[in-house]
Amino acid sequence: MRHFLITAGEPAGIGSDCILRAYATQPDALQQCIIVAPACWLQDRAKLIGMHIPVTEFGNIEDAKVDAVSNAAGLRCWNPLGSESSGPVTAGKPAPETAQAVIRCIEMAAQACLNGDAAALVTGPIEKAVLRSAGFTFPGHTEFLAYLAAQHTLSQAKTSFSEAGAEDQSHFVMMLASEHMRVALLTTHLAIRDVPDALGVDETLKCMQIVEHDLRSRFGIITPRLALCALNPHAGEQGHFGREEIDILAPAAAQARSQGIQVTDPLPADTVFSAAVRSQYDAMICCYHDQALIPLKTLSFGEAVNVTLGLPFIRTSVDHGTALDRVGQSSVSCSSLLAAIKMARQMGDLSR
Amino acid sequence: MRHFLITAGEPAGIGSDCILRAYATQPDALQQCIIVAPACWLQDRAKLIGMHIPVTEFGNIEDAKVDAVSNAAGLRCWNPLGSESSGPVTAGKPAPETAQAVIRCIEMAAQACLNGDAAALVTGPIEKAVLRSAGFTFPGHTEFLAYLAAQHTLSQAKTSFSEAGAEDQSHFVMMLASEHMRVALLTTHLAIRDVPDALGVDETLKCMQIVEHDLRSRFGIITPRLALCALNPHAGEQGHFGREEIDILAPAAAQARSQGIQVTDPLPADTVFSAAVRSQYDAMICCYHDQALIPLKTLSFGEAVNVTLGLPFIRTSVDHGTALDRVGQSSVSCSSLLAAIKMARQMGDLSR
Repeated sequence: MRHFLITAGEPAGIGSDCILRAYATQPDALQQCIIVAPACWLQDRAKLIGMHIPVTEFGNIEDAKVDAVSNAAGLRCWNPLGSESSGPVTAGKPAPETAQAVIRCIEMAAQACLNGDAAALVTGPIEKAVLRSAGFTFPGHTEFLAYLAAQHTLSQAKTSFSEAGAEDQSHFVMMLASEHMRVALLTTHLAIRDVPDALGVDETLKCMQIVEHDLRSRFGIITPRLALCALNPHAGEQGHFGREEIDILAPAAAQARSQGIQVTDPLPADTVFSAAVRSQYDAMICCYHDQALIPLKTLSFGEAVNVTLGLPFIRTSVDHGTALDRVGQSSVSCSSLLAAIKMARQMGDLSR
Repeated sequence: MRHFLITAGEPAGIGSDCILRAYATQPDALQQCIIVAPACWLQDRAKLIGMHIPVTEFGNIEDAKVDAVSNAAGLRCWNPLGSESSGPVTAGKPAPETAQAVIRCIEMAAQACLNGDAAALVTGPIEKAVLRSAGFTFPGHTEFLAYLAAQHTLSQAKTSFSEAGAEDQSHFVMMLASEHMRVALLTTHLAIRDVPDALGVDETLKCMQIVEHDLRSRFGIITPRLALCALNPHAGEQGHFGREEIDILAPAAAQARSQGIQVTDPLPADTVFSAAVRSQYDAMICCYHDQALIPLKTLSFGEAVNVTLGLPFIRTSVDHGTALDRVGQSSVSCSSLLAAIKMARQMGDLSR
């Protein structure tokens, strides 16, 4: 029996709404799921939105796992904070007092995955500005999880969990997937001004290797077909509008092909995502955040899943933020969370 | 009676295919249209694809206009080259020998619009690399037309045609429109590396003024609602990933609002184009080429229209290139050309 951990994320945001609504809509989808959070975060939100869902708290993951076999009786929380206070929560108003608890829940959930105590991690949205004020120095979840994975590898002998990219745990890839497309990012939370110099042949090659590896091992695609998006308009028109295609992207693609990876030369990014072209590829390698997220959200807002590739465990996430202005409202959708849980489950099945 | 000029663009590309197929599919859509090209470009292509469409050539626009009242008898060409050779054409193989003829057709068509001899200009796709080799120094059609308009204004007293932005003809805006959205570009054919420094408060304000003005005067939108797209991911997250939102875009938006223009502060570009958000705006102001063209083509490849705003005449264009590998094939679609003609006609009706 394999278990899935779900972090609620920012307790003042819609993370808890999503979990409660997901359970109310499709309780079966949450089979074997354990929420990593103080039970009061969910209990208080349930009260606020008038839902009667029992939430049970366990002090350690093993107890929560025993109970999580059947989830007919409500949600199960593993509260890893022990005697630490989780801080007071006001719906819609994130406060620095809860920041340590948010970070600790993510960290403990990741450790459980790294230790083999859980099959996958599904993360709810965090409020980065509040975490930063509490000393959290990572641009986001993804980078924090990559750091924890790297620390774990340093402190341990190799285990079977370290299979994917164990030789260099600092490499990870943010990928988003919807029914229409998968997009993988060469750079993530970076100013556009800094993107061109952040691209390199080695990094581009590494990204393609990780995407190709994980599409095979975790998505069951035997020969992944990758499209490489150009950085510049019209793919630079032979160097007239930028040389990154010539100097970085095309050489990386050539190296990847020499290793047996099916990847295109850099293609003009404005046509890659059109219906006729995107259907020819299993994933698009994108140079920057919005190049990937604009087409994805144009077609599938709120239904995509964020997947971190290259980690030694399975991690998926919702594709939305904390939506502080909509906390407790009936318009909050749990579709992205349900999709993230479903994808983690599928990846877990394929990775066994 | 108002007439519409259509340039065939690169004679070796699909421009001629599109015109012939448009006439064959919807002859009525080409009422009052005059093709600005040597008739042989269309005649030879018609022969190649096995279409029996009569094409008549006129040496001056006035004669072509008399005949263009009814187009039941085939296509009418105005060949503005006089005794100049148009050069030999090989389908699918652009040659420098035809470059001067391509440029001259566009120039003469624009002059006719500037002189009030035609209501609008619809342009077919050109092959920029070939034109460049013949000394054409403009990044594309749009910049060439803006140059011609500026020259015309310098050489003339003000006329009623100079209404839109006559005080500074060098300002123009490239806009693309589909059934889903309109996107206007702050920068066009520029390397991503050069985009941040090309953005300025004055230029952003000017763009919003032109878009707002033309949406009112040429699209019949009484109070245009504009969305301003951020340059950086997550709109820079309060300066964490870039400061262009704070230093340039937000101040320009504030100035625009003080002039009565309805425009947002810079919004994260990955969510602006989602269905729920894009439906709230009449146009999106985009910082760079792919930010605008990725969402547009993701939803409507081959059905969008390119419109140049801020010119003293109406100009629309297909949203595709010369597609040299598909010249003469039955898969060539005329839908973008038909959409461009239809939009020019609607704009002409609204501008009277």
